[in-house]
Amino acid sequence: MKLVYFENHAGTKLDERVYSEMIPYIGDYYGNAQSIHSFGAKSKDAVDKARSQVASFIGAQENEICFTSCGSESNNLAIKGVADAYKHKGSHIIMSAIEHFSVLYCGRRLEKESFEVTYLPVDNYGFVSPEDVKKAIRPDTILISIQHANPEIGTIQPIEDISKIANEKGVLFHTDAVATAGVVPIDVKKLGVDLLSLAGSQFYGPRGAAALFIKKGVRVIPQIDGGIQENGRRAGTENIPSIAGLGKAAELASGEMEQNLREMAVLRDKIIFGINEKIKYVYLNGHPQKRLPNNVNFSVEFIEGEGMFLLLDRKGIYVSSGSSCASKALKMSHVLSAINVDTAVGQGSIVITLSKYNTNWDVEYFLAEFPQIVERLRSMSPLYAFFLKTGKRKVAGPGTDYEHEHNDENEKAD
Amino acid sequence: MKLVYFENHAGTKLDERVYSEMIPYIGDYYGNAQSIHSFGAKSKDAVDKARSQVASFIGAQENEICFTSCGSESNNLAIKGVADAYKHKGSHIIMSAIEHFSVLYCGRRLEKESFEVTYLPVDNYGFVSPEDVKKAIRPDTILISIQHANPEIGTIQPIEDISKIANEKGVLFHTDAVATAGVVPIDVKKLGVDLLSLAGSQFYGPRGAAALFIKKGVRVIPQIDGGIQENGRRAGTENIPSIAGLGKAAELASGEMEQNLREMAVLRDKIIFGINEKIKYVYLNGHPQKRLPNNVNFSVEFIEGEGMFLLLDRKGIYVSSGSSCASKALKMSHVLSAINVDTAVGQGSIVITLSKYNTNWDVEYFLAEFPQIVERLRSMSPLYAFFLKTGKRKVAGPGTDYEHEHNDENEKAD
Repeated sequence: MKLVYFENHAGTKLDERVYSEMIPYIGDYYGNAQSIHSFGAKSKDAVDKARSQVASFIGAQENEICFTSCGSESNNLAIKGVADAYKHKGSHIIMSAIEHFSVLYCGRRLEKESFEVTYLPVDNYGFVSPEDVKKAIRPDTILISIQHANPEIGTIQPIEDISKIANEKGVLFHTDAVATAGVVPIDVKKLGVDLLSLAGSQFYGPRGAAALFIKKGVRVIPQIDGGIQENGRRAGTENIPSIAGLGKAAELASGEMEQNLREMAVLRDKIIFGINEKIKYVYLNGHPQKRLPNNVNFSVEFIEGEGMFLLLDRKGIYVSSGSSCASKALKMSHVLSAINVDTAVGQGSIVITLSKYNTNWDVEYFLAEFPQIVERLRSMSPLYAFFLKTGKRKVAGPGTDYEHEHNDENEKAD
Repeated sequence: MKLVYFENHAGTKLDERVYSEMIPYIGDYYGNAQSIHSFGAKSKDAVDKARSQVASFIGAQENEICFTSCGSESNNLAIKGVADAYKHKGSHIIMSAIEHFSVLYCGRRLEKESFEVTYLPVDNYGFVSPEDVKKAIRPDTILISIQHANPEIGTIQPIEDISKIANEKGVLFHTDAVATAGVVPIDVKKLGVDLLSLAGSQFYGPRGAAALFIKKGVRVIPQIDGGIQENGRRAGTENIPSIAGLGKAAELASGEMEQNLREMAVLRDKIIFGINEKIKYVYLNGHPQKRLPNNVNFSVEFIEGEGMFLLLDRKGIYVSSGSSCASKALKMSHVLSAINVDTAVGQGSIVITLSKYNTNWDVEYFLAEFPQIVERLRSMSPLYAFFLKTGKRKVAGPGTDYEHEHNDENEKAD
């Protein structure tokens, strides 16, 4: 079966070298890392090694790495853990409007508990303005959380500029680096962050292990209470195979990321160029250059997303409609809304996220099939027929039936 | 290398049939279960199948099963999730003093947030009295959490009696069944519980997947906020291999548990009989009959635990000092304190938890080695020398140097 997997922000294929590292702990060394005997010590050694691998992967110290079960849990521990630990200092938190749901929904949760959250808008490329961050800081602000890059539109934020402001103001700064860790190099000192989330499942590691970098001196209240694991910051028996795998994935990424990202960026640009060349009325979402090397996001006008996914699926091409955690409904994502994509246009959006396993043949195959699919779907579209006949765009809002005119070129189409 | 693994309450060896079920999702089907394409559907099918397997394993409905990453997380979701959801109704919670730390520490966390928690005492066998539960219920009680069985001393609680009281009073009832699920049969309807925690790593399933049974109509506030996974009750990309493994482990347990428990009970009784026969001044903790079929807990007098573990370790025998999550320090566990074990005696305690993989040879080997180890350690013990000379026990409290007398037989020695 043909398999062109272009949804790597929803999880990557496991690297076989990572798997090899996991096998002993799946089968033979099932001891508990907290046990005092030598059989448990085998497991503890694996956790220690992985911690060291992840620490050096992001330029941190070993005791600054807290293992969790997934990226969402890391984000929860960062946001709610800091909120709980510093609520005596203040109850205001700043985040962007295009954060992952595991950040945004922590914000909404905290709003129910007497916290105030400022959701910063972004520009049409998805950038947070450092100036906006500065203006939003209040005396009672305890945390700023801005993602390193957006997994849907690929926009890489000016984290260093923002962290400088946060540090000057003495406000803790968290970045969700789940979309970037293992894709672009990360150095927590250079970024200047106090907390950083990453997940192994995004860079050829296994499901079940992620990490939160917690800078020395920063306190978080555990969100899973119980045993003494992770230095009292995350209870629960350690998932040794996955943690060992995360460590190995981090080590491999350290050595291979630069080459992988160069190769992915070539494929990314080939897709962007190819789509722009072969399909009319498509609009690239996010910034043309300052984006993840593995991310493409296009809105295809006059098409409902569902048909596009279905026909691509039949060809063995798997893409995404946006955040994999959002909803199975094909409505426009909160990210596209935030960058002011027209609802009618945004509903025909696709996200492509590449991995190191994608080849030039994958891209050639996609670029051969996708324009035909778009053509076929548009040939069935009354909206497209209306446009061809009149040169005008028909946009139907909920419960309405009005028409208005657009210019041929969306302002974000560059 | 000789490997007699007697610490199965800290995690069991993975069943190879479970592993076979996991392999396709480790290697080939890495799609995200929330994706709308057919490749993601493979993962979704695996989650659905596992949910059905776990549901029928405990007599629940599929939509009553919420997957989590570990038993501690299940307990946290039950306790804090219910507390958050029902705090408008009341702020009083009841639990026993010998709950797992992931329950007890949720209690302590909630006490910092205006909740009141009653920690019920237990008798010298570790039993919670249903009468005590009844008396502790107040108009503002929203939750009772009593473990199904204690993983350290094996005591199985009268859950049906307690749930009857809880149901009569209209109070939600949670049981931590991490120590029992897969070891003894569980039927949530028969037990009469509203919430029940279980973990696959305790019954030959993988790390990284556990579940919380949440009876239809019972609300919990998610503790990991974000995506729509698990019906909005637990965000985070599903750990498909582990979830598939948990499902298979549940299915296997359904068919094989009865025989396994009979065989383990025979080995358990052989150990208890053997230790009592071969070693003087040892005291069984927990009830002689109403205990887990795989649990043995002895306090060995005149011995510091550390030496015992070390010498057993050298022989390839791995036992536990109590809860694996507690502390690496060999101090007496909160469970032994709660059942009034003398501190001096309790420090020489060992927990043995059997699995289906333990054999008669394991037990023979242990019973041959252990008495020699005890003999050797006692021969070096000044306390034992003093006792042999005077017939009196010397008990040194912290910073003191007093002596007092005991009877030869501890009241719990039966």
